[in-house]
Amino acid sequence: MKAVGFKRHLSLEDEESLFDFEMPIPKATGHDLLVKIEAIAVNPIDVSVRLNGSGEYEKPKILGWDACGTVVATGEQVGLFGEDDLVFYAGAFDRSGSNAEYQLVDERLVGHAPQGMDIADIAAMPLTSLTAWEALFEKMRLSIDKPSENKGKTLLVINGAGGVGSVATQLAHLAGLNVIATASRSETIAWTKDHGADQTINHRQPMPSQLYELGYENIDYILGLSDIDGHFKEMAEMIRPNGRIVSITGNKKPLDMGLLKPKSVEFMWEWMYTKSYYQLPEMITQHESLEKIARLLEQKKIKSTANKIIDGINAENLKAAHAMIETNSSIGKIVLCR
Amino acid sequence: MKAVGFKRHLSLEDEESLFDFEMPIPKATGHDLLVKIEAIAVNPIDVSVRLNGSGEYEKPKILGWDACGTVVATGEQVGLFGEDDLVFYAGAFDRSGSNAEYQLVDERLVGHAPQGMDIADIAAMPLTSLTAWEALFEKMRLSIDKPSENKGKTLLVINGAGGVGSVATQLAHLAGLNVIATASRSETIAWTKDHGADQTINHRQPMPSQLYELGYENIDYILGLSDIDGHFKEMAEMIRPNGRIVSITGNKKPLDMGLLKPKSVEFMWEWMYTKSYYQLPEMITQHESLEKIARLLEQKKIKSTANKIIDGINAENLKAAHAMIETNSSIGKIVLCR
Repeated sequence: MKAVGFKRHLSLEDEESLFDFEMPIPKATGHDLLVKIEAIAVNPIDVSVRLNGSGEYEKPKILGWDACGTVVATGEQVGLFGEDDLVFYAGAFDRSGSNAEYQLVDERLVGHAPQGMDIADIAAMPLTSLTAWEALFEKMRLSIDKPSENKGKTLLVINGAGGVGSVATQLAHLAGLNVIATASRSETIAWTKDHGADQTINHRQPMPSQLYELGYENIDYILGLSDIDGHFKEMAEMIRPNGRIVSITGNKKPLDMGLLKPKSVEFMWEWMYTKSYYQLPEMITQHESLEKIARLLEQKKIKSTANKIIDGINAENLKAAHAMIETNSSIGKIVLCR
Repeated sequence: MKAVGFKRHLSLEDEESLFDFEMPIPKATGHDLLVKIEAIAVNPIDVSVRLNGSGEYEKPKILGWDACGTVVATGEQVGLFGEDDLVFYAGAFDRSGSNAEYQLVDERLVGHAPQGMDIADIAAMPLTSLTAWEALFEKMRLSIDKPSENKGKTLLVINGAGGVGSVATQLAHLAGLNVIATASRSETIAWTKDHGADQTINHRQPMPSQLYELGYENIDYILGLSDIDGHFKEMAEMIRPNGRIVSITGNKKPLDMGLLKPKSVEFMWEWMYTKSYYQLPEMITQHESLEKIARLLEQKKIKSTANKIIDGINAENLKAAHAMIETNSSIGKIVLCR
């Protein structure tokens, strides 16, 4: 089968930073599905893994943590899916990715694809939806089923126009929250408002004073999706006492956690891969969440965040996608279709 | 009325570090109760506030965040209590404390005292019970009503024999958890086992290897009650992925929060005063929690952690109590009775 990978961590100008190669089709065992990939999406994590590291892999490493495809074979323990099922998933951090013709994925991380949607629109969703879902409904413990419970509560999404932000704003809006998204350009402001944000502020300007001007004394929930080092002090200032902060971006400098102590703030990391990486029993919740997300997409309660679609899953197109993400100003998701 | 206070932050050898003085009895207004103090307990926070700071107060500052006493007057908005009610409470951080003959306290922070118990045993409980309660049942979201939900889950209490630890072990045991407490001396080991700990490990030795020897791969919940700087790295190692850490002790050095990221750990501060300090609507939950704690004490489901009782609320006895806490090896609580 065809696949795209890399052996050394190189910048995109280097021919070998991502390259096409051939390898045998893997075989499904245990809980694994063998999926024929129809479309993939590219995430910041792909760029991060490609860039960060040293040395040389013996076999090419295959990136890709978003896929829509068809089940063509199943392991002997598979119970949730059968052949010909159209599925979507993000997969596991420590396994071979979706930048290939076929991929193995544990069924507990997979959902049945929503019906009546373009393959590209579906492929854009799994990683960001699962991240936003877990952040809002597991870590922050907001209820999606009872919007009345969230009435009058405010969520601030820092970097609202990115992949996760574009789903989080929609899900939070659906859950009845008042959603403030940060965005700094006219096109990202328009995008976030089109994806569920009630108001926007600019994260390149001091945020607390902008909130104050909008009439907010503090914020019940903050979802940090970019540059926690740069935003942490303001997050501590803006958060309500007893409030909850979830961050998906890691810190490079120490965080002054003591700033959160007088307010008894809850600080949670959300890494979508934790459940599969540690093979936790709650892995199955990713199947369950994707099934719910599929229904919301079918019912048009949320919409796909695909914003750029490229034909052909190959090294050349993947390099172009990585280059767009490296500008750090992309809106929504970039999808590649077979 | 008589009171004990200080104007400058001094060590105990100094005569003025705590002194007796006279002041007018304050008047209850709004939601305040005027309480005639019968017994008080001394907490590490008393020592911390006495020692840390500079300059000189114009009027003496009165410490004390644990009291049992009788309501003698009520503000015009009081609805939960009447005169002659025996009450117990920790109170607010930014108001005058219980080291006095009379004290004003917001009714929403107060519970009816448990019946059939010694005043001293009651006075030992409010601050530590509220801290343990909020840490376990609000921050960690454990259920006290459904022990079956917690079956098979393990809580590690770092510093199990201290004031908060001695209540947290009891409440967690009652809630059906498997409780591991840290203790380093034979008397603290015996104390924690007598207060609900199933097993103990020594926090002065590497903790992960001790847990491993006891058969634990990781720990679902960790309650940090001392030296978070010294224990943080081990906490990160011991915690289960998706686990929850609550700390009541602040950090002096930066915490390496990135250690918690791959596991998507939830890290929560618990400061019992947050609700009253910020006058949050959820202040009323401290009244509700103390009412529940009183029932548990009456039903002998938990027991008082009073371990040293001194007769007479005056500067001399308070200095003796502060001195004991300054050794950092006290077990349970020190109580002073009128």
